[in-house]
Amino acid sequence: MEAITYSPIGHIHSPFTSKEESPRQSIYTPEVEALIDIKPEFSPGLLHLERYSHIIVLFHFHLANGFELLVEKPAGGRSGPRGVFSTRSPNRPNGIGLSIVELLKIEGPRLTIRGVDMLDGTPVLDIKPYDPGLNPAL
Amino acid sequence: MEAITYSPIGHIHSPFTSKEESPRQSIYTPEVEALIDIKPEFSPGLLHLERYSHIIVLFHFHLANGFELLVEKPAGGRSGPRGVFSTRSPNRPNGIGLSIVELLKIEGPRLTIRGVDMLDGTPVLDIKPYDPGLNPAL
Repeated sequence: MEAITYSPIGHIHSPFTSKEESPRQSIYTPEVEALIDIKPEFSPGLLHLERYSHIIVLFHFHLANGFELLVEKPAGGRSGPRGVFSTRSPNRPNGIGLSIVELLKIEGPRLTIRGVDMLDGTPVLDIKPYDPGLNPAL
Repeated sequence: MEAITYSPIGHIHSPFTSKEESPRQSIYTPEVEALIDIKPEFSPGLLHLERYSHIIVLFHFHLANGFELLVEKPAGGRSGPRGVFSTRSPNRPNGIGLSIVELLKIEGPRLTIRGVDMLDGTPVLDIKPYDPGLNPAL
């Protein structure tokens, strides 16, 4: 058992306070704004992030309750079970979520972002610049 | 201190055995193939992943040695320090890496992928389907 332990670099403040309210994917909520408050000790790590219009946010699905390897996903257009790794379900063996969001503003340790599907209070694990040029599928 | 603990779902077998050999981004090595061996207990989670031509692989930078909040990145075209969150440096507060790779084949718990920048032995944390339609920047 190799345990890998992380600690949040900050938290998300969003209008979504329950799993029922949260949209399935941020593409469906392009207008919703939210904040990421980075812990002060990590804020030097934001230097020049404003050069990017979009960022990748990796976060922890803190309200997920265990995982299921097979997911019933009739909403996806094709019915029947799918493996969890072919879905974006929050109930995954390692509950890491990924969103690409628009970066509107950085003020000290606070980021204003748009296009959000994360719940209020979500722990943020990492932020990476988003550069379509590094994406081989495009 | 909120500790978040994960356990690898599998490991990568790649031709890159040292940090010096590994490319900076998978876009630079579109031809390199590698394997992901998923732990047998998680292989049901791969069901129908073959519907996707590309997948997102989240992994742990297992050979990274601590982190630096400011990164000197003269190779990026602009000189001077940058915050680690505006780079893809493996030396991050939470050492999570992200690659989008081509999915060539699935045989039981083994995935053959192409377009690899991960080191041999890299622990895999999560696999997600890659769907350009969910990407707001495209």
